[in-house]
Amino acid sequence: MGEIRQDPTTKEWVIMAKDRAERTRDSVPERVRKDLPMYSPTCPFCPGNEEMTPPDVLSYSDEKTGRWGVRVVANRFPAVTPEGTTKRRLEDSFFLSMDSVGIHEVIVECPEHNKTPDAMDPDALTQVLMAYQERYKALSRLPFVKSIIIFKNHGPRAGTSLDHPHSQLVAVPVVPTETRARYEVAIRHYDDNGSCLYMDLVRQEQDSGTRIVMESNGFVVFHPFASKYPFETWIMPKKHEASFGNASQGDLAGLADALHNTMTKLRRAVDNADFNLVLDSAPVGDEGKEYYLWHIRIIPRLTEIAGFEIGTGIHINTSLPEETARAMRDA
Amino acid sequence: MGEIRQDPTTKEWVIMAKDRAERTRDSVPERVRKDLPMYSPTCPFCPGNEEMTPPDVLSYSDEKTGRWGVRVVANRFPAVTPEGTTKRRLEDSFFLSMDSVGIHEVIVECPEHNKTPDAMDPDALTQVLMAYQERYKALSRLPFVKSIIIFKNHGPRAGTSLDHPHSQLVAVPVVPTETRARYEVAIRHYDDNGSCLYMDLVRQEQDSGTRIVMESNGFVVFHPFASKYPFETWIMPKKHEASFGNASQGDLAGLADALHNTMTKLRRAVDNADFNLVLDSAPVGDEGKEYYLWHIRIIPRLTEIAGFEIGTGIHINTSLPEETARAMRDA
Repeated sequence: MGEIRQDPTTKEWVIMAKDRAERTRDSVPERVRKDLPMYSPTCPFCPGNEEMTPPDVLSYSDEKTGRWGVRVVANRFPAVTPEGTTKRRLEDSFFLSMDSVGIHEVIVECPEHNKTPDAMDPDALTQVLMAYQERYKALSRLPFVKSIIIFKNHGPRAGTSLDHPHSQLVAVPVVPTETRARYEVAIRHYDDNGSCLYMDLVRQEQDSGTRIVMESNGFVVFHPFASKYPFETWIMPKKHEASFGNASQGDLAGLADALHNTMTKLRRAVDNADFNLVLDSAPVGDEGKEYYLWHIRIIPRLTEIAGFEIGTGIHINTSLPEETARAMRDA
Repeated sequence: MGEIRQDPTTKEWVIMAKDRAERTRDSVPERVRKDLPMYSPTCPFCPGNEEMTPPDVLSYSDEKTGRWGVRVVANRFPAVTPEGTTKRRLEDSFFLSMDSVGIHEVIVECPEHNKTPDAMDPDALTQVLMAYQERYKALSRLPFVKSIIIFKNHGPRAGTSLDHPHSQLVAVPVVPTETRARYEVAIRHYDDNGSCLYMDLVRQEQDSGTRIVMESNGFVVFHPFASKYPFETWIMPKKHEASFGNASQGDLAGLADALHNTMTKLRRAVDNADFNLVLDSAPVGDEGKEYYLWHIRIIPRLTEIAGFEIGTGIHINTSLPEETARAMRDA
C-alpha cells in the first residue's frame, strides 16, 4: 500500500505511488540528446562573443587562462526590468497589477560551451557561488527588491533556452505566495518549538539516515520525506543562517564541494538528466530571522507534471526517497 | 514594460513578459507527433480489449452502435487504493503520513483510439460529463472522501501515458493545500462583499470583454487576467453552484457545447497542442456554500515550467491573455 506524506516545510501532501512507475506507456517525451562543441560561434555566452550580450555586471577571471571564468550580464530577454514603480493598480475595482519592476541577470558559469554540471570542479563552482552571492548582496540593497531568486535550468525539459552552462537571478518587488506559505509554516514551528524548522529537519534526517545522500562538514544532502519529484535532492547547511547573503566564504566552498558530489552522483544515478536547481533564502529584510534556513533544492525532470498536480498542487511521486537516496549513496 | 498581475482567486502573482517570447533558443522539447490508428490491438481501452482492464464500474451504450460509448474502470496503476485508513501517523514526532486511501478511476471517453478532443461532438461530450458526474456523486458518499479531482491529460507533454482518449478521477481523503488557499480567498471575498468571488469574476470578464473567448447561454469561456500559461482557458457556469455534483443535466449539455467550441478553437489556434484539463469543485461536504463556483481550467502545455516557477510558484507568462483570447475568438 502507498502512503500520503506531508512536507513538513509546506504542509503539502504528496502521494507516494511506487507501483505507478510500472504502468504501460504509449509514449514518453523525447529526451533531446546533443553532442555539444566546446565553443559555438553563435552562442552569446562563449568567449569572443561578449558583444552579443549586454556589458558585464561582474566578472571573475580564471587564474589559469587570464581570461574570464565567470561572467554576470543582464538578461537580454528579461522577465522584469528596472523601469517602473511598485505602485499597485486596481483595474475595474477588481484586478490588481503593477509594473514588472525588477532585475533579471544571467550568470555564465564557465567559458566552455559543453561543460556538464558534474564536470565543474569545486573551485570553479565556488567562483559561481561567489558571483551568486555578490549579486545577491548588491541587489538586496535596492529599495524595491523584496525577494531574490537564483536558479538554474539544465536541459530543454527543465525549460532552458540556451545550452551554454548558466544560471539566472531574478530580483522581484514581491514576496511569492509560496514563499509566504513556507515562511508561515516555519514561524509556526518556531513559536511551537523555539527552534528552526529546517535545522530540526536536518537533525531528523541525520538521525534517521535512510534519506541521506551524503554529508560533509558543513552540509547535508538528502532526499526529502515528502519528495514531490523522483530524485528530488535538498542541500542544507548545518550552520544556521536565514539568508544566502550571509553565508561565509567557507560556507560557499563547502556548498561547492557538496554540489560537485551531488552532481557526480546524479550523473551516475540518472544519467545527467535535465534538472532545475533553486536557491531558497529568506526574503530581503529578514536576514536575521531565527526561523528560516537558506538551502538548495534540485529537481530532476524525469517525469511530467500532469492534470492532477496542476489541479491540486498534490504531486504523485512514483519513487520513494528512501530508495532513491540509497541509489545516490551507492552511485 | 511588462506587468505583474495578481490572480484574484489565489492572490498569486504572475509576471507577464511578452518580449521574452522572442528569446533565442538552442533547442525546444520535441513535439511527439503520431498518426494513430482508429483501433489498436494492444490498447486496453479499445473495444474488444475490455478484459485488459478491471471490470466496468459504469458504462453508457452508444445508441448508434449498440456497444459501449463511455466506460469507467478502476485504474490499473492507481495513485490511491481503497485499502487502509485515514489515521495519521507521526514518525519520529516529526514526519506526518497516512495510508494512500482513495479511489482512482479512468473514464474511457469513446471507443475510437484516435479521436482528437475537437472531434468529440457535444452529444458524446455530454455522455462523458454525465459519467464524470455519476461517479463524482457516488464517490462523494464514501465517508473517507474529502476531495474529488477530475482531470484529463492530453499528449505526452501533458503527462499522459496512454493515447486512447480518457480522463481520470481521483478521490482523496484530504483537501489539497492549494484548494484550501483558493477557498480561503473565496471566503474572504464573500465576507467582504457578500457575493461569490467567481460569479463576480465572470461578470467582470463579461463587462471588460477583452479576455472573453466565447459566451453561450450557460457558460463563459475566457483567458484569465493573470493567466499562468499561454492560452490558459477557464470555463465558468453563469449559474451559481459550488459543486459539480449539483450541476443539472442542462448544465452538462451546456458545458459540453462550450467544451466542444473551446476544443475546436484550441485546435485552430495552437494546433491541437498537448493540454491538461481540470475540473474544480467545492470539497465534499461544502456543496451548498455560496462562496465557491465549480469550473473548468484548460492548460495547454506549450512551454515548460522552469526553476523560477518551481522555486517561487510565480509563473512567467510570455503571452498576454487579451491577445490569446482575441486569437481564440478569431479562430
